[in-house]
Amino acid sequence: MAGEGDGMRVGVLTGGGDCPGLNAVIRAVVRKGVQVFGYEFVGFRAGWRGPLEGDTVALDVQAVRGILPRGGTILGSSRTNPVKVEGGVERIKDNLAGLGVDALIAIGGEDTLGVARELYESGVNVVGVPKTIDNDLNATDYTFGFDTAVNIGMEAVDRLHTTAESHHRALICEVMGRHAGWIALHVGMAAGANVILIPERPFDIDKVVEYVESRFKTRYAPIIVVSEGAHPMDGQMQLQTGERDAFGHVRLGGIGQALADEIEKRTGKEARATVLGHIQRGGTPTAFDRVLATRFGLQAIDAVRDGDFGKMVALQGTDIVRVGLDEATKELKTVPLERYAEAEVFFG
Amino acid sequence: MAGEGDGMRVGVLTGGGDCPGLNAVIRAVVRKGVQVFGYEFVGFRAGWRGPLEGDTVALDVQAVRGILPRGGTILGSSRTNPVKVEGGVERIKDNLAGLGVDALIAIGGEDTLGVARELYESGVNVVGVPKTIDNDLNATDYTFGFDTAVNIGMEAVDRLHTTAESHHRALICEVMGRHAGWIALHVGMAAGANVILIPERPFDIDKVVEYVESRFKTRYAPIIVVSEGAHPMDGQMQLQTGERDAFGHVRLGGIGQALADEIEKRTGKEARATVLGHIQRGGTPTAFDRVLATRFGLQAIDAVRDGDFGKMVALQGTDIVRVGLDEATKELKTVPLERYAEAEVFFG
Amino acid sequence: MAGEGDGMRVGVLTGGGDCPGLNAVIRAVVRKGVQVFGYEFVGFRAGWRGPLEGDTVALDVQAVRGILPRGGTILGSSRTNPVKVEGGVERIKDNLAGLGVDALIAIGGEDTLGVARELYESGVNVVGVPKTIDNDLNATDYTFGFDTAVNIGMEAVDRLHTTAESHHRALICEVMGRHAGWIALHVGMAAGANVILIPERPFDIDKVVEYVESRFKTRYAPIIVVSEGAHPMDGQMQLQTGERDAFGHVRLGGIGQALADEIEKRTGKEARATVLGHIQRGGTPTAFDRVLATRFGLQAIDAVRDGDFGKMVALQGTDIVRVGLDEATKELKTVPLERYAEAEVFFG
Amino acid sequence: MAGEGDGMRVGVLTGGGDCPGLNAVIRAVVRKGVQVFGYEFVGFRAGWRGPLEGDTVALDVQAVRGILPRGGTILGSSRTNPVKVEGGVERIKDNLAGLGVDALIAIGGEDTLGVARELYESGVNVVGVPKTIDNDLNATDYTFGFDTAVNIGMEAVDRLHTTAESHHRALICEVMGRHAGWIALHVGMAAGANVILIPERPFDIDKVVEYVESRFKTRYAPIIVVSEGAHPMDGQMQLQTGERDAFGHVRLGGIGQALADEIEKRTGKEARATVLGHIQRGGTPTAFDRVLATRFGLQAIDAVRDGDFGKMVALQGTDIVRVGLDEATKELKTVPLERYAEAEVFFG
Repeated sequence: MAGEGDGMRVGVLTGGGDCPGLNAVIRAVVRKGVQVFGYEFVGFRAGWRGPLEGDTVALDVQAVRGILPRGGTILGSSRTNPVKVEGGVERIKDNLAGLGVDALIAIGGEDTLGVARELYESGVNVVGVPKTIDNDLNATDYTFGFDTAVNIGMEAVDRLHTTAESHHRALICEVMGRHAGWIALHVGMAAGANVILIPERPFDIDKVVEYVESRFKTRYAPIIVVSEGAHPMDGQMQLQTGERDAFGHVRLGGIGQALADEIEKRTGKEARATVLGHIQRGGTPTAFDRVLATRFGLQAIDAVRDGDFGKMVALQGTDIVRVGLDEATKELKTVPLERYAEAEVFFG
Repeated sequence: MAGEGDGMRVGVLTGGGDCPGLNAVIRAVVRKGVQVFGYEFVGFRAGWRGPLEGDTVALDVQAVRGILPRGGTILGSSRTNPVKVEGGVERIKDNLAGLGVDALIAIGGEDTLGVARELYESGVNVVGVPKTIDNDLNATDYTFGFDTAVNIGMEAVDRLHTTAESHHRALICEVMGRHAGWIALHVGMAAGANVILIPERPFDIDKVVEYVESRFKTRYAPIIVVSEGAHPMDGQMQLQTGERDAFGHVRLGGIGQALADEIEKRTGKEARATVLGHIQRGGTPTAFDRVLATRFGLQAIDAVRDGDFGKMVALQGTDIVRVGLDEATKELKTVPLERYAEAEVFFG
Repeated sequence: MAGEGDGMRVGVLTGGGDCPGLNAVIRAVVRKGVQVFGYEFVGFRAGWRGPLEGDTVALDVQAVRGILPRGGTILGSSRTNPVKVEGGVERIKDNLAGLGVDALIAIGGEDTLGVARELYESGVNVVGVPKTIDNDLNATDYTFGFDTAVNIGMEAVDRLHTTAESHHRALICEVMGRHAGWIALHVGMAAGANVILIPERPFDIDKVVEYVESRFKTRYAPIIVVSEGAHPMDGQMQLQTGERDAFGHVRLGGIGQALADEIEKRTGKEARATVLGHIQRGGTPTAFDRVLATRFGLQAIDAVRDGDFGKMVALQGTDIVRVGLDEATKELKTVPLERYAEAEVFFG
Repeated sequence: MAGEGDGMRVGVLTGGGDCPGLNAVIRAVVRKGVQVFGYEFVGFRAGWRGPLEGDTVALDVQAVRGILPRGGTILGSSRTNPVKVEGGVERIKDNLAGLGVDALIAIGGEDTLGVARELYESGVNVVGVPKTIDNDLNATDYTFGFDTAVNIGMEAVDRLHTTAESHHRALICEVMGRHAGWIALHVGMAAGANVILIPERPFDIDKVVEYVESRFKTRYAPIIVVSEGAHPMDGQMQLQTGERDAFGHVRLGGIGQALADEIEKRTGKEARATVLGHIQRGGTPTAFDRVLATRFGLQAIDAVRDGDFGKMVALQGTDIVRVGLDEATKELKTVPLERYAEAEVFFG
């Protein structure tokens, strides 16, 4: 176990897409590490690219002043995966040794934590902090950023309700969530959507149109909340899957606009799509996310102090606990059927 | 001139797209009309369709309770144009006479006020209240709804900045404004956009790409705010203008995504578009819009009391005045070059 | 167990102080009760006064339309305690029988649920739903309203930081919490307070002044978040406990201003208090509170359907469960020392 | 007139209380000054104390990056008045000369601009930018910060409405405004207060109680918005004017709580006061304030370029103009009777 104030040096990095609360984690780690344990810190820039290339930035109490309410990450981020780089793991180990880094706190999602696990298995002292706006990480009740994204989506749908009450027009709101529908589920339940479509349940476009038609018979127009990763049952709707972006990736997304087009075609009523996009992952975190991120940071530095490596901090109930990095990354946490069924009560 | 409490009956309608502040106008008209002047009110449903079809709704102090902070319109709206309906104007005059309506307050944009002007010219006692989220109505400094839309757009772009600081990715935010760029101009200036594109100034895509490239050389990624009605100079970018929606209209909009595609293609960097859509016209109005709408309503009922018809209420400086309906509708108020030039200081 | 659509009539009431999310519970109960189970509902007005006096209000799907995002309660509330009224319990039983009410859902805090428990013990079919903005109810991880209150407090303190950075002035923000410091703890942690004072820990004014003095030596001024129920150690600061309000109650609160006065006196620097008061319990609920309240409502009506009375619905982790009403009301859930210790890392 | 890029050095300072939008002014001044005119800048710290003591801070494009959305002022502020300091004006002139400062932009309220006028009269090249959260400066339609303060107050009162609908309790919200009631007037009109009390009109407590009593007869409880500087007619209510703070000043404020006490005493109903305090002047500015502050900044640096000194920039309608510093500071802009009368329609 690391002793107090024994010259311990701790590296910190943030990987993957940005997420409100990253700075709150960094601040908590550094404040407690320096003020209580007397540690020194090394900030790595741009995710795993930092330790891979030895790209560091000063990280002390002064550097974390005022960052608690700010979105993004003062360390920058990237999707660099050192495991896929020839000799990447060895270069990281060499760089950590060269910088005198005794332990590493890696804040990130499935990919970042997967690398963290591999590094731990090859002897690096790593503690992971879970981060995913989609809330699809296993072994933790919630991840920070999710609550902020849900509130942004809810406020958007609250505003759409006004229009839905004044005009006869179907409104579709596309929210984040490629593989898991947590954001759509919570936004839809919080804002009173008439239909919620998630990746875990291929939807029946006939049923969706039926809900829309029945809603149009009331004074109010229908509002549909759809995950970017939601898709119709096999054979329904011809989604343009052939399109590729400048990087050769098949374009994901677009389901919101596709739904609007299909509904117009089938019902003869106007339909409009709103795509929130990156707005959901920017800006100041909610109180829930700031408290969760801060407590994650405090627990992560405690784990370093305890020499309890190979762990990820996690929320269980109201407690912050530590779980194995392997448990955290073994599968995606998707929306269970019974949670979706709860919401279906309000459909139509 | 109408005397106090002489059994005066006043009709009220809201036409065109919805807009935060409509309910605040209705409330002010009714509260002062009933409590101070002793008038009775007739609410017409769904814009000009109401008087055309004699479709009315009760409108008294009880009906307007609690509506001040609520977006939309309790009267509903439509784009029905009675002037284009065979015998429409006569039917309206008959219906008003049949209902004993002595004066009509029409709240709406260019189209609604154009009808109001024609009715006034054919002998109906009309007072107009200007309404356009786009702020493109002549003869008034501002219209309610605009400030709300600008704040919603600004908050969205504020959030995008977080991502722009953490990732190297161009972010485009498409806001409302088909013919006038007021929303884009104010959102872009308030939120610190790197480029603002408006309908009044066909943009040079080469220049836009240049700004984007130069911005990518700094630590920060570029943010572009674009009006839905903005378009490139002749011959640049092949916009898909051939597409038509379910109603046969050529699809407008889509400039945000088109820009993202073009920037990706030309720069080889990722670009992402956010399309705010109807979110900008829903939800609770800002204080500016509530005060403006309330003062418009008070002035409109004063005009009725004064028998001062054929007028539109308007904001000039901090005063609410009355101008001729003809002046209000004779041309669109677009962004003058010098206002755009102010903002250009911050480009790049 | 009650069968589906068998003419079951369910009463609903809301007791105690208002709290964002009450309407979301009512809506979920009624929507699922009517649409899935075919039940009828009776709304009781103003807490326990409703069933005591047989004061009811229509409660159907139409009545709950559009209330999800609205604070307050459409049923009204009161602090009437029928147990303290001569023959109160019998009158309620008679009224329920007379109205044909088979089961009762009582939404409220410690007092309301205590009455619910007594009624259950005397034979009434009751299900409880926990409600307290202070989060001090036992047997549930969180109660709705708390997250909203914390976010309101956090936004206020975020704003105070701006002033603290520009002027040398101590700023005190008094938040709700008479017996438990949960709101202060979360607001203070989320917004980066320099000191947090809670009822569970009598504070040492000398220590507080020390923190304030040390903070004044930096560029930034100190911000203190204090629960209304916090108090100094015995003998410190002469709080005016003698004052009584119009109802003869000794005035609680005032600790924020008292602290400001004491800090000015001892440090010779200006200090200003902000008292958020009722602002914390009004307005639209956050997404967290809307989802929690909705899920509580669904579980409560499920408990009725299951004939599972004498229970309170509760949050445990991410699950909604049922616990005994006796367990829920046996003691107050206060802030444990280790949670306060977490926050102390950031003091000074 | 100063030529472009001729080595012109411009000083900038912010004086008086902080106000959302100060940073937006500074950013606009520096961005246009550097990028368009090629000027250099000298930031003075803490209002007039900066030039008085030669206390400067670097001010270039890098220093103003990212400050547009942030409240407060990066230059700091103070209430130092050099005119009241022995030889103060001469010391400032010497320091400006020593630093090679050719022109000075002073951003502040009545006091700051009064000093600016005196300096101008003694030969210093000064341009003023008006700043007052209270909107009580002459010669400009609005000042930045006011719109932000009004929105914060409105949101608070919106939240109070929820409670007022659920409980029978009078709610008082005290807002800023020592000498002018603009904030109370706009907050009260925007949020639907039942009574608005402002410093310009000593109120009749009997009349206030009458409104409160009559409101209690409806389903809703009364909400009163009161300026901190409002006061009852002579002889009514015994305000404790004898109390003094640590600095010997008679305590201002407290009218909100005094009103609550008086209403409880006279009506026998509960009354609660909320005092927003510094929350109104902190945090991010609204879009209106950011655009206004930015345009003020652009106009101020244009005035410097034009050698047009002794002027203050001002808003008239939608135009930014320049007026004499003497005109701006000759009297306070208070609420005219007719504006108050407009609002009275909604009282009771």
